[in-house]
Amino acid sequence: MHFAYPQNDSTMIKSFFNEELSRGKSYEMLDHLSNKIGGRLSGSPQAAQAVEWGKRTMEFLGFDKVWLQEVMVPHWVRGEKEQAKILSQKEKTEVRICALGNSVGTGPKGISAIVIEVKNFKELAKLGRKNIEGKIVFFNRALDPTNIGTGAAYGGAVDQRGSGAVEAAKYGAVGVVIRSMTLANDDHPHTGAMHYEDSVTKIPACAISIYGATKLSEAIKFDANTKFYFRQTCEMLPDEKSFNVVGEIKGSVFPDEIIVVGGHLDSWDIGDGAHDDGTGIVQSIEVLRLFKALGIRPKRTIRVVLFMNEENGMKGGLKYAELASKVNAKHIAAIESDGGGFTPRAFGVDDDNAVQKMQPWVQMLKPFGIHEINKGWGGVDISPLKKEGAILIGYACDSQRYFDYHHSEIDTFDKVNKRELELGAGCMAALVWLISEYGL
Amino acid sequence: MHFAYPQNDSTMIKSFFNEELSRGKSYEMLDHLSNKIGGRLSGSPQAAQAVEWGKRTMEFLGFDKVWLQEVMVPHWVRGEKEQAKILSQKEKTEVRICALGNSVGTGPKGISAIVIEVKNFKELAKLGRKNIEGKIVFFNRALDPTNIGTGAAYGGAVDQRGSGAVEAAKYGAVGVVIRSMTLANDDHPHTGAMHYEDSVTKIPACAISIYGATKLSEAIKFDANTKFYFRQTCEMLPDEKSFNVVGEIKGSVFPDEIIVVGGHLDSWDIGDGAHDDGTGIVQSIEVLRLFKALGIRPKRTIRVVLFMNEENGMKGGLKYAELASKVNAKHIAAIESDGGGFTPRAFGVDDDNAVQKMQPWVQMLKPFGIHEINKGWGGVDISPLKKEGAILIGYACDSQRYFDYHHSEIDTFDKVNKRELELGAGCMAALVWLISEYGL
Repeated sequence: MHFAYPQNDSTMIKSFFNEELSRGKSYEMLDHLSNKIGGRLSGSPQAAQAVEWGKRTMEFLGFDKVWLQEVMVPHWVRGEKEQAKILSQKEKTEVRICALGNSVGTGPKGISAIVIEVKNFKELAKLGRKNIEGKIVFFNRALDPTNIGTGAAYGGAVDQRGSGAVEAAKYGAVGVVIRSMTLANDDHPHTGAMHYEDSVTKIPACAISIYGATKLSEAIKFDANTKFYFRQTCEMLPDEKSFNVVGEIKGSVFPDEIIVVGGHLDSWDIGDGAHDDGTGIVQSIEVLRLFKALGIRPKRTIRVVLFMNEENGMKGGLKYAELASKVNAKHIAAIESDGGGFTPRAFGVDDDNAVQKMQPWVQMLKPFGIHEINKGWGGVDISPLKKEGAILIGYACDSQRYFDYHHSEIDTFDKVNKRELELGAGCMAALVWLISEYGL
Repeated sequence: MHFAYPQNDSTMIKSFFNEELSRGKSYEMLDHLSNKIGGRLSGSPQAAQAVEWGKRTMEFLGFDKVWLQEVMVPHWVRGEKEQAKILSQKEKTEVRICALGNSVGTGPKGISAIVIEVKNFKELAKLGRKNIEGKIVFFNRALDPTNIGTGAAYGGAVDQRGSGAVEAAKYGAVGVVIRSMTLANDDHPHTGAMHYEDSVTKIPACAISIYGATKLSEAIKFDANTKFYFRQTCEMLPDEKSFNVVGEIKGSVFPDEIIVVGGHLDSWDIGDGAHDDGTGIVQSIEVLRLFKALGIRPKRTIRVVLFMNEENGMKGGLKYAELASKVNAKHIAAIESDGGGFTPRAFGVDDDNAVQKMQPWVQMLKPFGIHEINKGWGGVDISPLKKEGAILIGYACDSQRYFDYHHSEIDTFDKVNKRELELGAGCMAALVWLISEYGL
């Protein structure tokens, strides 16, 4: 059935939302990805299943073209369930930890050493080798709750997780324990990527739950000789072959001008990756499905990319841009949804001129929750497209609940609200349509 | 300790949020109200406990004055667990229902009759007495999911719940089953108030879960003689004595000008009334606590009112206004939070001039999620203050999840996010401060 174009832009935009909120498929897709496939860390069998699912889904939806882009990805495995104890003068207290992604293991017997609490790298440097050597370093700087945007709070603390092991190893530490990157006060440890440097000894790194961090800090205050024990059997295996999944609808007027919309298909292993980034994946697929369902042929080519390996390597994002560069593909914009499936708030755009150009669109998107199009962050996976000339755009939904779930065992399907997810898909579709109609 | 006023309004506003997000008490108060007291329908022992708790809490927080306002309230009780079955040619299917508030019971044996599905009162009238007499009427009009504001979707369907029994009884129906007022697709029935008219036979009314409504509609399509059985032993008892709880901090410059901030202390009985309206209650108390904690003496008097009996009678709201009128109290504004404890979006104001006056404040509140101050609804409890001259203001947080929980067994504490709750308290405190400083 051919779709009769509504008479104006606002009516057209509303039609995306009407379709999505009445007959949307994003929630159903997310149910499958989260509950039938689950956590899908790069290199895992679940990641391979997710690739298969993504390809099949897009083929079923009848996009003009669907293909895979081969990419080699790191293959880190968590191993056995981690164990940890606080060993103080009086008692042993079990606490909840999880290995950080990319970390080495502790060996089968685990490690145990006196634990030193610090809040930042400056404190660590001040303590120096004489206080740190042979010890475990506990990084316990909390996310700042007075930051209204939780992304900023996360950004202000995540150096501990990313670089804590390297920094502590420079002073001879034998392991690091990182306070989980969350604003919630509960007992779920939050994993996430850490990195090593070739010139620095690789020491094992784990995240401790907030309850655990509180107990550990109290134990250290009470007894400076408190020891920490932890055991994790994680390891980095040889790289594995994996894929980005790409689908597109060809533009009718400017087929060579490409608008990418995407998220990352991999996730951490301990939850089911619903908010990070299952929601971004299904919203991105849904954008193209909405064009199909409404019978809209876009003026410019729109392409959904399910990027592999955002969490611990970014190999998919790099590969996509590399292949685009090889064929001189003209990417005018790339939109990423990787902040969860919460209620819409804004789009962040990395280019001042584009922000200006897009201001008249705010009024059209306001009824659906987009109150601002601002200078802001696009997304990890699309960032390599900058040098291909793309304007990078991030879908910025409400951030308050995101880090409660992020990288933890409670990032699960039941934490996603169907309507919030659908409104995000609608906003992304509306923006893609505006860019497709008017360019940037 | 005296508080040194920050140099400008924005800094002052930020200080409310800093305090709330770092040392806020709203979540802890809500935990008590929801988990220690629970559902608190007017006239119930829990409602009495909630009154006691409200008074004690405000006294402990050291407000200038705390008092109770006696008010007689309806005392409806649910009775035994409701039962319902679809009786079709082939099989009996149990479905989940709950009695609607204020409804009569079915008698101990329940009632059973052929069930007729309609979508609205027009369809009902068309069928007329010859098709309706002796039957049960099933009102099955869904909330419109394409309404972006869920309040509008609710408003477009709730006539079925409120007036369905009266309308059906006019044509001789013996009972009504109402599709639950929710946008979620699940098995939780949603209660809520219905009313009778003196001249019309009182027939029992229940709400059916969405799963149940779907099954019932299918059964009727398959077999027009499908019967419905339900049993509920609810009843209206004599009115009970109850109370509004009021606390205030006296204004330093215009003590006779009162700004009310409040919510309703009663809730339905089947959940714990966390979002409806525990969050409004604790946010309102928290507004005054924040002034105390920051050492701010407001220019105008600010008064928190925990209204009794919003859900099935509005007696508390009427009583408060009646008493205010008797002493010629000058109420310049009243702010109600009764849309759940979700992330901030807007304030709705019932007066055009006030909306204009408040526009410059939007810029100050934007960093905290308030993007609009618009013409809008204040709240049920504060509505009688209109004739006392108050500008009525509703705190309008994000509405997407509200009706998933509203009036159901899953309106519970765990559905409230601490930061979203706290941001709402901060926004309300900021607005109260601005009104207190600058008037309306």
